Amino acid sequence: MRSTTVSADHPGINELFALLAYGEVAAFYRLTDEARMAPDLSGRINMAQMAAAEMGHYGLLREALQQRGVDVQEAMAAYAPVLESYHSQTIPRTWLEALVKTYIGDALAADFYLEIADALPEEVAGVVREVLAETGNSQFVVSEVRAAVTASQQQRHRLALWSRRLLGEAITQAQYVLAERDELVDLVVSGTDGLGHLAEFFERLQRTHADRMAELGLA
Amino acid sequence: MRSTTVSADHPGINELFALLAYGEVAAFYRLTDEARMAPDLSGRINMAQMAAAEMGHYGLLREALQQRGVDVQEAMAAYAPVLESYHSQTIPRTWLEALVKTYIGDALAADFYLEIADALPEEVAGVVREVLAETGNSQFVVSEVRAAVTASQQQRHRLALWSRRLLGEAITQAQYVLAERDELVDLVVSGTDGLGHLAEFFERLQRTHADRMAELGLA
Repeated sequence: MRSTTVSADHPGINELFALLAYGEVAAFYRLTDEARMAPDLSGRINMAQMAAAEMGHYGLLREALQQRGVDVQEAMAAYAPVLESYHSQTIPRTWLEALVKTYIGDALAADFYLEIADALPEEVAGVVREVLAETGNSQFVVSEVRAAVTASQQQRHRLALWSRRLLGEAITQAQYVLAERDELVDLVVSGTDGLGHLAEFFERLQRTHADRMAELGLA
Repeated sequence: MRSTTVSADHPGINELFALLAYGEVAAFYRLTDEARMAPDLSGRINMAQMAAAEMGHYGLLREALQQRGVDVQEAMAAYAPVLESYHSQTIPRTWLEALVKTYIGDALAADFYLEIADALPEEVAGVVREVLAETGNSQFVVSEVRAAVTASQQQRHRLALWSRRLLGEAITQAQYVLAERDELVDLVVSGTDGLGHLAEFFERLQRTHADRMAELGLA
């Protein structure tokens, strides 16, 4: 059990919500872009449904920020470069790469939400958990990727490398954000209560990433 | 007051739902494509929210079809060509054209839903009205277009022409669909009860289109 160590007016909370809000918008456009590679209508619809869910999360975060007296669009503009940079560094070349990126990205976001949620005051944590409860739309990915990597050892190696690259790029960008935003560092460190330092936070993300690779048959 | 003239197992109902379902998916991808022309984040977010709403409608239609024992993806494949054709014939060249297309398309869909809804048995009309209640996400378009056409007479003429072309193309494609689908013709004709023929149906669409042009300042 962790205890709440952050007050509801911690300045990192607005920053966190703004970061997540832009993350949702960026994910929306990334998913719809990558859906172009889908081999069939079913894949395009799955991606569209995931993308639509991202805008639902965005709506929750926008409302939460509004209640805190913050304009979402102003607040999130600061996070556009780092999220666009993540996506432009990780443009998939195949539909399978797009699927893996979708799944890993969704899972990383969920991990991140979970890490943070426990440290937040209840009224704020509620928003984060509501968004989190909405993720998991990426389950359709699992069977398609598993089938492909069971059929081809070469695909397994290729997608395992791709998956590691996604994690590496996510960590690079996260470190970049944290270097710029003391409020967020303070929030994350308060969140990883009992550990209290960032290295552990990133190690934990890497462990859950390894679980996800196993789920996809990439371990 | 119109009376219900169609039974719940009218074969046109599955066809109508399938047509509308593909229309929602096509609109999703069209909106996200056209959002690329947005001059700012605010425009991209408005478009993304509209697109997300389309997938909500799609979900309602998919469920309704499932309850009628119909697989949405199989059923709607027949309508892909006509809807893709509409969109490929009406690719906007500017952000204002994209906005007008969004608004007119949303309004035409609403008109179409309304025309049909009254003729349907209550359990089926409920689905249509639920989707209809969800439209109107395109209101953000009005002020932006009105401002542009108030500032420039040339824009007004250009966008008025564009708007007429959109209607013309929609009617062309609708006639094409109806020529191929007797079940849908029968449904539409039952729907326009007291008029009973297609020419009136299209005239009515043209009248409401004129109202929409006036709302946008294009009359």
